[in-house]
Amino acid sequence: MEGEMIQLDHGSGGRATHDLIRSLFAEAFNNEFLSAMNDSAVLSLNTGRVAMTTDSYVVDPIFFPGGNIGSLAVHGTVNDLAMLGARPLYLTAGFILEEGLPLEILRRVVLAMAAAAREAGVLIVAGDTKVVPKGKADKIFINCSGLGMVPEGLCIGGQYARAGDAILINGTIGDHGMAVLCKREGLALENEILSDAASLYQLVAKMLDVCPAIHALRDPTRGGLATTLNEIAQQSKVGITLDEQAIPIREDVAGACELLGLDPLYVANEGKLVACVPGECAADVLEAMRTHPLGRLATQIGAVTAEEAGRVILKTRIGGHRLVSMLRGEQLPRICCWSISEPASPWG
Amino acid sequence: MEGEMIQLDHGSGGRATHDLIRSLFAEAFNNEFLSAMNDSAVLSLNTGRVAMTTDSYVVDPIFFPGGNIGSLAVHGTVNDLAMLGARPLYLTAGFILEEGLPLEILRRVVLAMAAAAREAGVLIVAGDTKVVPKGKADKIFINCSGLGMVPEGLCIGGQYARAGDAILINGTIGDHGMAVLCKREGLALENEILSDAASLYQLVAKMLDVCPAIHALRDPTRGGLATTLNEIAQQSKVGITLDEQAIPIREDVAGACELLGLDPLYVANEGKLVACVPGECAADVLEAMRTHPLGRLATQIGAVTAEEAGRVILKTRIGGHRLVSMLRGEQLPRICCWSISEPASPWG
Repeated sequence: MEGEMIQLDHGSGGRATHDLIRSLFAEAFNNEFLSAMNDSAVLSLNTGRVAMTTDSYVVDPIFFPGGNIGSLAVHGTVNDLAMLGARPLYLTAGFILEEGLPLEILRRVVLAMAAAAREAGVLIVAGDTKVVPKGKADKIFINCSGLGMVPEGLCIGGQYARAGDAILINGTIGDHGMAVLCKREGLALENEILSDAASLYQLVAKMLDVCPAIHALRDPTRGGLATTLNEIAQQSKVGITLDEQAIPIREDVAGACELLGLDPLYVANEGKLVACVPGECAADVLEAMRTHPLGRLATQIGAVTAEEAGRVILKTRIGGHRLVSMLRGEQLPRICCWSISEPASPWG
Repeated sequence: MEGEMIQLDHGSGGRATHDLIRSLFAEAFNNEFLSAMNDSAVLSLNTGRVAMTTDSYVVDPIFFPGGNIGSLAVHGTVNDLAMLGARPLYLTAGFILEEGLPLEILRRVVLAMAAAAREAGVLIVAGDTKVVPKGKADKIFINCSGLGMVPEGLCIGGQYARAGDAILINGTIGDHGMAVLCKREGLALENEILSDAASLYQLVAKMLDVCPAIHALRDPTRGGLATTLNEIAQQSKVGITLDEQAIPIREDVAGACELLGLDPLYVANEGKLVACVPGECAADVLEAMRTHPLGRLATQIGAVTAEEAGRVILKTRIGGHRLVSMLRGEQLPRICCWSISEPASPWG
């Protein structure tokens, strides 16, 4: 494979496609469903509610501190399922490759996907490879669709936040967006900022163990924390007050944002979730979150109110109040490159 | 929307993304699952076997005689499910859009998807929109993933063909590939060749009604009939003899292939299936197929043999025999742009 490039006939459906599938994808994603090699994977599911989601990943650069487009695709899709409380089970992987892409690059991306999937306990059960002529795509785009089972009794969604809910977050904001941006712009900081990209299902499971009545969960990806909270406020027809002082942010991320004139409230995260939980459960949920490595810095950052329905109000450090709107315009093109921050997720 | 173009902030996750989703996608694909607007769609499924598949569509040109990239995406994904005997239920749609794409083009594609989904009886329950800078993608790429239920008692797959099976096809070969190629190359034929792109599940249901024991079904897309039959021969470890004279082909398609030096056995189809059925059922299945508009020209084109395992042998018009191999190289770049012709579908 060394030195080999992706050619158009890797996407022709013929011999070269077969060889690529056998030598790379089938081996890396090895499981009984995929290796049946039929037009669809046939899966057994218990009766009940199934969560289904899709996301395309077009991040630039494809390798960044803390991850790459492959691991990101798995984390992002797993998280879209987890945000409904669903246990992620099966993923599909659709690749659009640019002619001339070094096979070694594809191999690194695929192995990262395989590792992320193993870690998250999901199987990649179906896939697709398309190759377009040089210049008609940017190296590699990945679509990941996912399937998970929603346990009985859960009722989680952006429309279920209620006045009196506490708003929790599991850690610092803006890490992923700034990691990608600094890498892309060649910004040399003293300490490299790492993406927070990670699969959040295990953390969610711990939270649900102590509080199955969680009202809303969402991962603030594209559009950042501000956009995600606006979505919830609008879907649930509630107000949200946010305490600026309480929002965790790394000093270097805050510094890089200031340098670039970006508001960290709008910067993408890929390993963060916000939860709206009944006020009386907040302490228990926070305690449970902090027992998980991805929830070590979990904290309450705000509350849901009956007033100011549909709006997000920030209590600033110096005691003022300002309206926080949804992202307008493209603050960070192609940083996060997926989903949950859209209002119409499952139009993720 | 008139005259408006896709901008980067249509993919930012913020206000513009929301507006596009509400004004176009949510309206065109309108259903209760999508409009819940959470990170995943939550679906209810009966217990049992679920088929899951994915395909990306990168066809060039995006509009061609008989369809466009949107209707094609629905048909292709529905067919991947149908080839397992599964009743297609739910689709996801992931769009990668090039900055500057006229919104009107996107609207036409989306409406074609919605119409194709309605016709096939499937719901588009989750989606995603990404926008990349001008020149980093070619107008529009679509990923469609799909979910369907496999009825109890069916055992259909490329690995189940058996000596004695009849090989059936539902109509003429090469229509889609030549429709796209003629359009792309600006070839003016006396009669325009139309793509055969269509959803095949209703036809499959009719076939299964009279013969639940169908062994293998596959749609000869990328790589054409020759590649698909090679896959089945290899997966099932059987030989296949093909009767050239019996293979239906339109005169104008045959003529255009000759003109361009292409072998129609390797040209993509998007509304065709090949079925391996026990010999004693062949007459009944053919009769059932012919009662459906997409099976009017259904006919037997070959048989499965114990000899020559893994190979496909063509009995030529003049009585000779030649080995038909899998497609090597890229005969028709970006013509069909999807799946089933690959050996490792579900790596479609």
